Amino acid sequence: MTARGPIERLPTGISGFDDIAAGGLPLGRPTLVTGTTGSGKTCFAIEFLARGILLFGQPGVFVTAEETADSIRSSAASLGFDIEQWEREGKWAFVDASPIEGEEEPIRTVGAYDFGALMARIDHAIRRSGARRVSFDSFSSIIGRFTDLGVMRRELVRIVAGMKTLGVTLILTSERTEEYDGISRYGVEEFVLDNVIVLRNVLRDGRRRRTVEIVKFRGLPHRTGEWLFTIDSREGFVVIPLGVAHPPAHASTVR
Amino acid sequence: MTARGPIERLPTGISGFDDIAAGGLPLGRPTLVTGTTGSGKTCFAIEFLARGILLFGQPGVFVTAEETADSIRSSAASLGFDIEQWEREGKWAFVDASPIEGEEEPIRTVGAYDFGALMARIDHAIRRSGARRVSFDSFSSIIGRFTDLGVMRRELVRIVAGMKTLGVTLILTSERTEEYDGISRYGVEEFVLDNVIVLRNVLRDGRRRRTVEIVKFRGLPHRTGEWLFTIDSREGFVVIPLGVAHPPAHASTVR
Amino acid sequence: MTARGPIERLPTGISGFDDIAAGGLPLGRPTLVTGTTGSGKTCFAIEFLARGILLFGQPGVFVTAEETADSIRSSAASLGFDIEQWEREGKWAFVDASPIEGEEEPIRTVGAYDFGALMARIDHAIRRSGARRVSFDSFSSIIGRFTDLGVMRRELVRIVAGMKTLGVTLILTSERTEEYDGISRYGVEEFVLDNVIVLRNVLRDGRRRRTVEIVKFRGLPHRTGEWLFTIDSREGFVVIPLGVAHPPAHASTVR
Amino acid sequence: MTARGPIERLPTGISGFDDIAAGGLPLGRPTLVTGTTGSGKTCFAIEFLARGILLFGQPGVFVTAEETADSIRSSAASLGFDIEQWEREGKWAFVDASPIEGEEEPIRTVGAYDFGALMARIDHAIRRSGARRVSFDSFSSIIGRFTDLGVMRRELVRIVAGMKTLGVTLILTSERTEEYDGISRYGVEEFVLDNVIVLRNVLRDGRRRRTVEIVKFRGLPHRTGEWLFTIDSREGFVVIPLGVAHPPAHASTVR
Amino acid sequence: MTARGPIERLPTGISGFDDIAAGGLPLGRPTLVTGTTGSGKTCFAIEFLARGILLFGQPGVFVTAEETADSIRSSAASLGFDIEQWEREGKWAFVDASPIEGEEEPIRTVGAYDFGALMARIDHAIRRSGARRVSFDSFSSIIGRFTDLGVMRRELVRIVAGMKTLGVTLILTSERTEEYDGISRYGVEEFVLDNVIVLRNVLRDGRRRRTVEIVKFRGLPHRTGEWLFTIDSREGFVVIPLGVAHPPAHASTVR
Amino acid sequence: MTARGPIERLPTGISGFDDIAAGGLPLGRPTLVTGTTGSGKTCFAIEFLARGILLFGQPGVFVTAEETADSIRSSAASLGFDIEQWEREGKWAFVDASPIEGEEEPIRTVGAYDFGALMARIDHAIRRSGARRVSFDSFSSIIGRFTDLGVMRRELVRIVAGMKTLGVTLILTSERTEEYDGISRYGVEEFVLDNVIVLRNVLRDGRRRRTVEIVKFRGLPHRTGEWLFTIDSREGFVVIPLGVAHPPAHASTVR
Ligand SMILES: Nc1ncnc2c1ncn2[C@@H]1O[C@H](COP(=O)(O)OP(=O)(O)OP(=O)(O)O)[C@@H](O)[C@H]1O
Ligand SMILES: Nc1ncnc2c1ncn2[C@@H]1O[C@H](COP(=O)(O)OP(=O)(O)OP(=O)(O)O)[C@@H](O)[C@H]1O
Ligand SMILES: Nc1ncnc2c1ncn2[C@@H]1O[C@H](COP(=O)(O)OP(=O)(O)OP(=O)(O)O)[C@@H](O)[C@H]1O
Ligand SMILES: Nc1ncnc2c1ncn2[C@@H]1O[C@H](COP(=O)(O)OP(=O)(O)OP(=O)(O)O)[C@@H](O)[C@H]1O
Ligand SMILES: Nc1ncnc2c1ncn2[C@@H]1O[C@H](COP(=O)(O)OP(=O)(O)OP(=O)(O)O)[C@@H](O)[C@H]1O
Ligand SMILES: Nc1ncnc2c1ncn2[C@@H]1O[C@H](COP(=O)(O)OP(=O)(O)OP(=O)(O)O)[C@@H](O)[C@H]1O
Ligand SMILES: [Mg+2]
Ligand SMILES: [Mg+2]
Ligand SMILES: [Mg+2]
Ligand SMILES: [Mg+2]
Ligand SMILES: [Mg+2]
Ligand SMILES: [Mg+2]
Repeated sequence: MTARGPIERLPTGISGFDDIAAGGLPLGRPTLVTGTTGSGKTCFAIEFLARGILLFGQPGVFVTAEETADSIRSSAASLGFDIEQWEREGKWAFVDASPIEGEEEPIRTVGAYDFGALMARIDHAIRRSGARRVSFDSFSSIIGRFTDLGVMRRELVRIVAGMKTLGVTLILTSERTEEYDGISRYGVEEFVLDNVIVLRNVLRDGRRRRTVEIVKFRGLPHRTGEWLFTIDSREGFVVIPLGVAHPPAHASTVR
Repeated sequence: MTARGPIERLPTGISGFDDIAAGGLPLGRPTLVTGTTGSGKTCFAIEFLARGILLFGQPGVFVTAEETADSIRSSAASLGFDIEQWEREGKWAFVDASPIEGEEEPIRTVGAYDFGALMARIDHAIRRSGARRVSFDSFSSIIGRFTDLGVMRRELVRIVAGMKTLGVTLILTSERTEEYDGISRYGVEEFVLDNVIVLRNVLRDGRRRRTVEIVKFRGLPHRTGEWLFTIDSREGFVVIPLGVAHPPAHASTVR
Repeated sequence: MTARGPIERLPTGISGFDDIAAGGLPLGRPTLVTGTTGSGKTCFAIEFLARGILLFGQPGVFVTAEETADSIRSSAASLGFDIEQWEREGKWAFVDASPIEGEEEPIRTVGAYDFGALMARIDHAIRRSGARRVSFDSFSSIIGRFTDLGVMRRELVRIVAGMKTLGVTLILTSERTEEYDGISRYGVEEFVLDNVIVLRNVLRDGRRRRTVEIVKFRGLPHRTGEWLFTIDSREGFVVIPLGVAHPPAHASTVR
Repeated sequence: MTARGPIERLPTGISGFDDIAAGGLPLGRPTLVTGTTGSGKTCFAIEFLARGILLFGQPGVFVTAEETADSIRSSAASLGFDIEQWEREGKWAFVDASPIEGEEEPIRTVGAYDFGALMARIDHAIRRSGARRVSFDSFSSIIGRFTDLGVMRRELVRIVAGMKTLGVTLILTSERTEEYDGISRYGVEEFVLDNVIVLRNVLRDGRRRRTVEIVKFRGLPHRTGEWLFTIDSREGFVVIPLGVAHPPAHASTVR
Repeated sequence: MTARGPIERLPTGISGFDDIAAGGLPLGRPTLVTGTTGSGKTCFAIEFLARGILLFGQPGVFVTAEETADSIRSSAASLGFDIEQWEREGKWAFVDASPIEGEEEPIRTVGAYDFGALMARIDHAIRRSGARRVSFDSFSSIIGRFTDLGVMRRELVRIVAGMKTLGVTLILTSERTEEYDGISRYGVEEFVLDNVIVLRNVLRDGRRRRTVEIVKFRGLPHRTGEWLFTIDSREGFVVIPLGVAHPPAHASTVR
Repeated sequence: MTARGPIERLPTGISGFDDIAAGGLPLGRPTLVTGTTGSGKTCFAIEFLARGILLFGQPGVFVTAEETADSIRSSAASLGFDIEQWEREGKWAFVDASPIEGEEEPIRTVGAYDFGALMARIDHAIRRSGARRVSFDSFSSIIGRFTDLGVMRRELVRIVAGMKTLGVTLILTSERTEEYDGISRYGVEEFVLDNVIVLRNVLRDGRRRRTVEIVKFRGLPHRTGEWLFTIDSREGFVVIPLGVAHPPAHASTVR
């Protein structure tokens, strides 16, 4: 398969996001969504599937690697989405990859970790539902099983290569513990993935402010810098099309 | 068991806290309460049970993993609560998980640490007392026994999953050594738990100021940022419904 | 033994300190006194016993784990106290726990370090002298023998539990290498101990300033923040009842 | 072979870059191009070959060690270059060195890693196409396989020596995770390579700014400091011949 | 041997130093002199012996653990002292403890390192010359041989205890790599030694400034904070009795 | 061999440098020249030999441990020096110590690394050419082979002692990765060497500025602080006899 032109876009339908993404996520390629705890990664991952169903009629698969499906259903409900309804209609499918399920696997996998079984389940869910979108939340809990950075990197490349063959547009959430220090937990994930989005939840003078930034879209233009967003029970995940200006920066914030 | 709508709330009854929590703690889910030494974690854990008994008639179980039950009784007395009275009335029960008790267990548990025995004791105490609330103080002293971060994370997921089946609302206290650097000691706990509260005790120009912040409620709105609180012999733990503004920030602090 | 009410206080008699301590140290419980080199830990430990003898007629035991007894006698003399006189009168007793004494013990104690022998000597000295106060200087040199943090914590809990059964009020000095970075050397001691005091010796614009702060009294109120103190050949350890205000903070420093 | 005079230059043809390079890259010597994720390393590597073809009729070889050739083709297309056309014309050749290809090689190579096979493939591609320019993207994914810094350095020297015998001008991209902290990931690469360029993508007050800096050309003059550049679908990689002045620096930015 | 009163002083005779030391170094006790490279440790160690000979007729022993005796002779000559003359007069003796001499000793001494042989040589030199002062330069090169911090500490205590029995006043130089970060290289030496002096050589706005500070004299008063000093071919090591005030501190620097 | 007076000087002939060095480098002693990549270490090492030949008729030996001799020849040519001419005249000799040459030696030398063979080659080159000056570039690549800091230090002392017996004045270049953080890569080299010079290439507001500082000349006076310098195709390495003043420092920069 040969790419004749630039990568195409998949409009996400998430309010305001496609503006800063200059059209949407790179079609058919995985995107890393990284942020500290509570920064909104899971909300983004839910919205990505929900907007696909609501606005474009695209079914989706949600791979949950840490929370239970029920927990995701509750979170989605609080954003105004009825997942169970969609599950019954065959528009939303869960794949459970939480450590509770596959209890006794060896932890310190030095060589080739068998990510294949999970890939097969994801592939199967995609085929059955005809999904165009996949959210994998959180990816960190999977790659944290590789204790050696060299091995982690090689396996990451292999896993991501496998994901690209799935023929869907995929979001992978990833953890970080500092707001302005590097990009990802291991400092390796962002180089392997084609696209990187950072969600921030910055504490400043006792107040929190949420921002989203597209750090990298390989081979595609996008708007740069941080953009404010909110999470809301009625509107869900909403990106505000105004640039961020930290005090003591100059006053004009529109760009 | 399927969640039909958003997660419900459990009003804590702690002065001012339910305001910033937009109603209370997420019902039936564990909440991590993290802070430096002396930041008020144990006071919060005591208040949580005490207010449940006083305001809502809900019995509680206090799992003490480091201090003795007597030490907790004294601390509670200084906040104006007579725990022994409640113990006699069957409203308050202690479960002692301190390392003094289970002396000779192996320390460097690599695989599955037998957290099960403790869970059985907690479960038993809950059933006997009909508890609706559980405080586990401190959780760090338990998870510090896993020396490998990968193992710790997997076990954390397993332990937390077990706790959710207890059918109670649970608080887990957790240690940190810096006020504004990450969230928890190991940088892993906050991602596994659904809800995270940070208690701070900040030294600035030689003075201390206590603040409480809800960093994350998965799937639920809450007020954000830091809020001042005090610990007092008459009023106990009191959150002040004024936002925090650090100098040299702008003057208006009401929001 | 059951605590009916809040913990009682032991007035130390150290000038100005009982004011900020709201009456004195928590009676019958160990207190960690932590500070950088030369911050005044040993002076505080000497004063604690000396004031007990001079003002309240309470005998004391000084456990010296690094300096020799003679060195402590000299330091006390420079603060105006004649320890040998008190030793002759049975009011002051030394327990020597320095590494010079117990030469050939194994260093890398992985399991249960035999702290018992030292405890027996301390217990014996307390009984013989009828001591009400014990200073243990420095505690760091003892706990530094546990090379594994997990083991150190478990042993710390055990040691501190043993100390509480001695029926005295005890001060443990502990080392730190930075003035405003965490509390103790290993980041674990402060969580195990009920009470924590920090002595600081801050270099600013080429000048040094000494401050004392009560960081934690479990279950007891106290004044918060840093307070200036001096060490003096005539007055010894003197806390000045004025708050600290670092420039460029606002002018009023009385509180 | 003896160098009689100073090293010659290879004009890159990248807009504005040859100005700050005082003529171009050192001819026949490898140059390290280092930057954080999304800083433009791959764009630079593509431009280097594309401008050689378009402006100087020099064929090029692109060694891709992490992304697939197709991914590079897409990225090039978005910069306005039709690589497949050039491939057909024999002006552009890919060498795939991604870990997906050479699956089962041993990871923890302690001694001499067999970089030779890859060198042979590169050498062959150069000969067949008559290439004058080679881009190796990314070099970090190769050297990250040496887990010992001492071994990495010795092997780096050996690899770089091998590259110099290829008779081409070569660009090696390399990863870093902080914008203003050191030069390269391992702190060793920049000392082994003769020439070092840093691409930065700095976040400041919520906005991003791209700069390029020539940190080192061994034995050759060049303009120093950071220079702004943009990446654009029509113009590609464009260096702006104005110096960078960070606020609050003085106003004049032309030099 | 029992100390009846406070520790006595040994006036050093170093210009200005005895003023800030409130009389001199603590008599008969070792003092750690710590500083970065070139901060003046060796000059101080030379001056200490030289002033003893010139002003008080006290012979001295110089233990050189890294430089050769000849190198020290040259440095002393540049400060205006003729050591060889004093050597001939029996007033100055060298003990060479450099690693060149005792070639084949085992490096990774885990248990009791045989510091005894060196002590015997020092002791012998003291007896033969009737020395009252000893300079040991540098002590770091000796203690760096203990690779385990726990072992290092225990051995340090043992070595220092041995030194106290020598009946002389001793200076031990020790290395640090940062000007305002902790006190000593390993963070342990300063707690074992009774007295600590820091020499700083601070780079600020492109200029260097030398300061000396007495950080700790156990059991003795002294002036606190940093004091300027110079090293000069005519005057040697000269402490200037004016306090240091870093800009932007307030103007009055006399105290 | 006994030093009767202070160490003598070797005027380098490098423009402006001998002024700040108060006459030149300490004669017959090795000097560490440390700096980040591209800071000018190799230029300084070349200039040192070239000025000796041009101004004082002193032959020199250049030990190249990482770059090839040809690379050094090119760099020298760009500074205006024709090394091959000098090689033919017997004024300049290369010793190649690059890892390419001595391929199969064991890397993790724990004990005594055989530095002797290299020393013999250097010694031979000195004798044959009658060299008075030696540049060893880079020394870091040699000492990085000792993976244990304790061993490295002992071997460094041994190597440096050997170098002093060569009877020449020697420059050793050494790497660092941060501009204002410590002195050398391992934090040990600067203590072993008698003389230390730091070359800096500081990025500030997007611009680079080069400075040279003499940090230490054991036993000799020198001017202190940072001094600006430039590298130029016509003038080579030129130190500007004006002090450095960083904004926002005060205006007068002459001293
Ligand atoms: N219905 C809602 N209304 C308002 N805010 C909400 C709502 N649901 C969630 N939030 C906010 O979103 C936060 C949780 O976001 P989310 O679960 O997406 O974070 P996350 O980045 O996935 O965190 P983690 O790494 O811990 O999984 C909550 O803490 C809350 O502040
Ligand atoms: N056609 C385009 N128009 C505008 N911007 C583009 C275009 N193509 C790429 N970019 C920008 O360049 C960035 C990617 O640059 P590039 O792939 O060269 O980075 P990189 O340094 O190689 O990153 P990595 O280390 O992750 O490989 C994108 O994130 C985007 O911002
Ligand atoms: N009755 C009281 N009145 C006022 N302040 C009190 C009272 N009781 C406790 N405090 C304050 O609360 C602090 C202790 O709080 P708490 O024990 O909850 O802290 P913690 O976070 O649990 O600490 P640790 O991590 O060490 O267990 C005391 O240091 C004191 O400052
Ligand atoms: N005669 C002199 N005149 C002026 N300055 C001198 C003289 N002798 C030495 N110095 C200064 O003192 C510095 C060396 O001091 P010294 O050798 O005491 O440092 P040090 O702390 O022992 O260093 P190291 O840790 O490397 O041994 C020299 O760098 C020089 O700046
Ligand atoms: N009589 C005195 N008069 C004035 N100051 C004194 C007197 N005695 C001691 N000091 C001051 O107290 C300091 C020593 O205090 P102390 O020994 O209590 O410190 P420390 O915290 O125990 O240090 P370390 O951790 O090294 O044991 C001395 O450095 C000195 O500045
Ligand atoms: N002829 C020249 N004219 C102007 N500048 C030059 C010239 N030659 C070299 N330079 C400058 O000197 C720098 C290289 O200096 P040099 O090779 O001495 O650095 P280095 O400290 O040895 O670096 P490394 O640690 O990488 O070996 C070049 O990057 C360039 O900026
Ligand atoms: Mg999440
Ligand atoms: Mg607590
Ligand atoms: Mg002490
Ligand atoms: Mg790239
Ligand atoms: Mg010295
Ligand atoms: Mg060089």
